[in-house]
Amino acid sequence: MTRPNKASVGLVQPEVFSYYESFELCSGEKLPSFEMVYETYGTLNDKKDNAILICHALSGDHHAAGYHSELDQKPGWWENCIGPNKPIDTNKFFVVSSNNLGGCGGSTGPTSPNPNSQKPYGSDFPTILVKDWVKSQKLLAEELEISRWLAVIGGSLGGMQAMQWAIDYPEQVNHAVVIASAAKLTAQNIAFNELAREAITSDPNFRSGDYLESHTQPNKGLMLARMIGHVTYLSDDGMDTRFGRDITSSDSAEAGGAKFEVENYLHHQGTSFTRRFDANTYILMTKALDYFDPAKDTNNNLSEAFRNAKSKFLLISFTSDWRFPVARSREITDALIHADKDVSHIIVETDKGHDSFLLPIDRYTKALSAFLNQAHVTVPKDLSVL
Amino acid sequence: MTRPNKASVGLVQPEVFSYYESFELCSGEKLPSFEMVYETYGTLNDKKDNAILICHALSGDHHAAGYHSELDQKPGWWENCIGPNKPIDTNKFFVVSSNNLGGCGGSTGPTSPNPNSQKPYGSDFPTILVKDWVKSQKLLAEELEISRWLAVIGGSLGGMQAMQWAIDYPEQVNHAVVIASAAKLTAQNIAFNELAREAITSDPNFRSGDYLESHTQPNKGLMLARMIGHVTYLSDDGMDTRFGRDITSSDSAEAGGAKFEVENYLHHQGTSFTRRFDANTYILMTKALDYFDPAKDTNNNLSEAFRNAKSKFLLISFTSDWRFPVARSREITDALIHADKDVSHIIVETDKGHDSFLLPIDRYTKALSAFLNQAHVTVPKDLSVL
Repeated sequence: MTRPNKASVGLVQPEVFSYYESFELCSGEKLPSFEMVYETYGTLNDKKDNAILICHALSGDHHAAGYHSELDQKPGWWENCIGPNKPIDTNKFFVVSSNNLGGCGGSTGPTSPNPNSQKPYGSDFPTILVKDWVKSQKLLAEELEISRWLAVIGGSLGGMQAMQWAIDYPEQVNHAVVIASAAKLTAQNIAFNELAREAITSDPNFRSGDYLESHTQPNKGLMLARMIGHVTYLSDDGMDTRFGRDITSSDSAEAGGAKFEVENYLHHQGTSFTRRFDANTYILMTKALDYFDPAKDTNNNLSEAFRNAKSKFLLISFTSDWRFPVARSREITDALIHADKDVSHIIVETDKGHDSFLLPIDRYTKALSAFLNQAHVTVPKDLSVL
Repeated sequence: MTRPNKASVGLVQPEVFSYYESFELCSGEKLPSFEMVYETYGTLNDKKDNAILICHALSGDHHAAGYHSELDQKPGWWENCIGPNKPIDTNKFFVVSSNNLGGCGGSTGPTSPNPNSQKPYGSDFPTILVKDWVKSQKLLAEELEISRWLAVIGGSLGGMQAMQWAIDYPEQVNHAVVIASAAKLTAQNIAFNELAREAITSDPNFRSGDYLESHTQPNKGLMLARMIGHVTYLSDDGMDTRFGRDITSSDSAEAGGAKFEVENYLHHQGTSFTRRFDANTYILMTKALDYFDPAKDTNNNLSEAFRNAKSKFLLISFTSDWRFPVARSREITDALIHADKDVSHIIVETDKGHDSFLLPIDRYTKALSAFLNQAHVTVPKDLSVL
């Protein structure tokens, strides 16, 4: 067995947290019960003070590190950051990563059976807000007997969850790491999400969201939605370095049939996405992004929204990220400074755009590592003897 | 009659230039004949040296100024720039504006009958490159007995035509005005065009381009294509000023039904576009954008491509235009400087994005006006007595 290796958490197994009570959402709607799939990496120490929660972004899930089988071709989505001696060091920390409600990784979502009809929820699945996710993750923390996270960490939509945690459960978050995120989306960002939704809902196979009943999927629409997203996750410069104006086909431009490499790449990305993702979940996640606005309840005063927060904050942003630009992280940082909170903001120079938050960029991962290493934690017993 | 008024060219009538010979395209394909719709504003002077050619962009057409009837709600697309005492002053200049081949404004294009089949060309319409347009516009110039343009002016895709004119017919272009354009698209820009094409071709009503035979139109796809384009024509800041996070519907965000104003705006723009535009033309125009690359034949040396040009050049770019950013105009300017050409580059500060080239922005229109006023032209006889 060559993989999993020492640098990885190795083979991991998803677990399921079942919540049998009614769960009320911000919308007023209720889930009669829910299941939440999660993974853990590392060991919870006796004091239970070394736990870190990872919050995923739009297209992520609970599988953040390691492999599900020895045949697994791909590790979890944040393999480069989570593992032994990695920035989120599983020799020291107990890492929890769950699939958000409404997701399609196994947690209760639009593809789950609706207990009222026994058919898949589909279009009947309720709207979920970031606040709902945080509330459900709090129930998972209780289940795991974690009364306080050493850190809550997330990029993009995950960063919004980290902020919401610090706001809603100030006593329960020691450190909040908000990467490539925003306190609220701009009109342009909402517009890109709406383009993606329109792509999905325009697909005749979408059938108003109840496609599973017809044993079909709006794959063309979902593919285009992903292609739209993908273009906005890269930067103009980064794409030019990677693809330029390279032509893949043998046809000349003049003959009209030429395809640029960047076109093929996007089609490939879009197509492979449809094999792992659900269209209703995509819509639900983009709506959660659009609606996130913690300062709405404090008269658009973000400082005031953070007033009771007790976490140390680390903001990380990337110079070429135009979907969640540096200025958005600066707004959060300024609000936290104004609220007299402990905050640092690291701006990382890169041409990799919004995707940077998933990449092993040295200055970025070192900043994350240094921030987490400030925390004094007891190394879990079974590791301290190594 | 309140409109047309003094500030407008008033009522205008499209004319048709019919070319009865075979027209060979860069692709090697031939149009057995073509018709080109055009409009003219102002009067050609005796010396025929006051003629200006306007080249339109992706979604434009020949109707650049004035009104087609007294009931007309909207003037031509560049009404704010073309007219008596306007920057492109029809008291002095004779302005020609044609609908590009492959367009859907009346010139021979995918909606025209294919003489070989008597059905609409549809998917059989050949690929058209910027160079083909310029060659066809040259035939129109001959028809109008204009041996030399005082200026060739265009924004975006129109700017590419102005450059191509200066390269292909150096003796016949006194001034070239290239607005919000690029010497070649970047990978990101090609990617956005491909998203639009994918939106159109994914619509089941597209029927491989032969939708007119089925008396249908891929309107959902074309709507989405326009929505995608539109987002990229505006700037993040501009959209935020205009729409912010305003909600249009009465539903609250929490209830899940809330729509942001920006979403409604895009849907409205997309829908109204389908009433005036053809999907195959949209694809053809975006391909022409993608394939434009005059330096390809000079070993990627743009200066060398401009070596024989004899025009005075004015480049205009807009600070918030991220689809055709200032850097792209700077590349053209630098290439022209390097080639020892007469060139100015005006950078206009604005938050209006790529759309700026269509807007009455004072510094922009004054720069255009000043540039054109350098030219010594004889005022047409019938106006000099006014």
